Amino acid sequence: MVTKNQIKLVTSLQQKKYRTQHGLFVVEGKKTVNELLQASTRLYKLFVTNVQAVQDFEGTELVSQAELRQMSSLNTPSDILAVFYKPNSVEIENKDWIIALDAVRDPGNLGTIIRLCDWFGIKHLVCSSDTVDCYNPKVLQATMGSIARVNVLYKDLSIFLKETSLPVYGAFMDGNTVHNEKLPKKGILVMGNEANGISSAVEQVISHRISIPQFGDQTTESLNVATATAILLNEIRRT
Amino acid sequence: MVTKNQIKLVTSLQQKKYRTQHGLFVVEGKKTVNELLQASTRLYKLFVTNVQAVQDFEGTELVSQAELRQMSSLNTPSDILAVFYKPNSVEIENKDWIIALDAVRDPGNLGTIIRLCDWFGIKHLVCSSDTVDCYNPKVLQATMGSIARVNVLYKDLSIFLKETSLPVYGAFMDGNTVHNEKLPKKGILVMGNEANGISSAVEQVISHRISIPQFGDQTTESLNVATATAILLNEIRRT
Repeated sequence: MVTKNQIKLVTSLQQKKYRTQHGLFVVEGKKTVNELLQASTRLYKLFVTNVQAVQDFEGTELVSQAELRQMSSLNTPSDILAVFYKPNSVEIENKDWIIALDAVRDPGNLGTIIRLCDWFGIKHLVCSSDTVDCYNPKVLQATMGSIARVNVLYKDLSIFLKETSLPVYGAFMDGNTVHNEKLPKKGILVMGNEANGISSAVEQVISHRISIPQFGDQTTESLNVATATAILLNEIRRT
Repeated sequence: MVTKNQIKLVTSLQQKKYRTQHGLFVVEGKKTVNELLQASTRLYKLFVTNVQAVQDFEGTELVSQAELRQMSSLNTPSDILAVFYKPNSVEIENKDWIIALDAVRDPGNLGTIIRLCDWFGIKHLVCSSDTVDCYNPKVLQATMGSIARVNVLYKDLSIFLKETSLPVYGAFMDGNTVHNEKLPKKGILVMGNEANGISSAVEQVISHRISIPQFGDQTTESLNVATATAILLNEIRRT
């Protein structure tokens, strides 16, 4: 039996304010839930409509489909919903490339970028404090479970970049073409906001301006930030 | 004044069947409409709620916002909706790379891939007949106007690939890493379906199997087809 208070808690976690207050976040769907369990993310509560759906964990609660629907943020809820404790962020190591995001606002873009970091083996993703929250349900949906393997941190980006000893690269429309750059073995790559690119405060602490060359008509819309990140991560890894 | 029959015609064009029957398609929003007008796509009818919104074209019709809402497929319609004649597809030239899609089903993916072709100066996009229709409203939305500059054709893909004189490359999870490939100046790159990849019929006519190397955990979900296309188009252009 799920209590009214539990339902209220779970639905409140759709808002960042309550995720911060309780230190919890919600994940729906077998795949992402399993990835987080495998990555030893600490479980608070697991709600399932069918006990066969998962291994038995302490805190597993059998609920009806109607109850799950009340807790879900999805139009068509799956048969599993988990509440996890937000993990403590890990200290950043300067051993490899780090990706930094300056005010990325679209949940789908952040989720895709987390998934790309996972694919390309990037361990740390540093977000400006006005980047969308990585525990937003739409972000988690788009990460396809990769959130379990990428360390996402929120920081004052200008200060973080000022203090680093790594070279700082930024993606700009008018940067040097990345095809001619000899990228180092480690560094920081900054990607900007969907509409405005990298903010002027952050721009001041960027030492290398790079761009993805365009071959088509000049009137073409610029690349989407997630697509551009995909191309630049591939460039980083091919050196 | 817009007639009931006109409204009926416009809403019917949300379905592929009627787009084929009438040889027409609908575009909403100033940006995409303007890109198509600039590219000399033949206009059938232009509906605007405000005459100042566009230049005067033959066939421009002033309508109320309520009337535009009736015709629109969007939740929040813009102030301009145009009906265009479907352009005749241009003959394919073998002068450059061509992208081919095998059963790409998601409208957002096709739209993004058209936009990427435009960015990277790819003139021809050949789609298998079971790929989503490029005049689907959601596809057009995602192209951001690029549909005006990319020649999209629907063909029996196996036959097309059998008859070409160009080398045929295909993206596979187990292909040779693209980082070690010396890509030619021209060729065809085949990208497969979201869930199943390239079909076995098409696989038989592919001469070069390539892949994007993975650096993270092996359990990571494969890259999305639009993201993978972005990376491979950049690889094609950097040679």
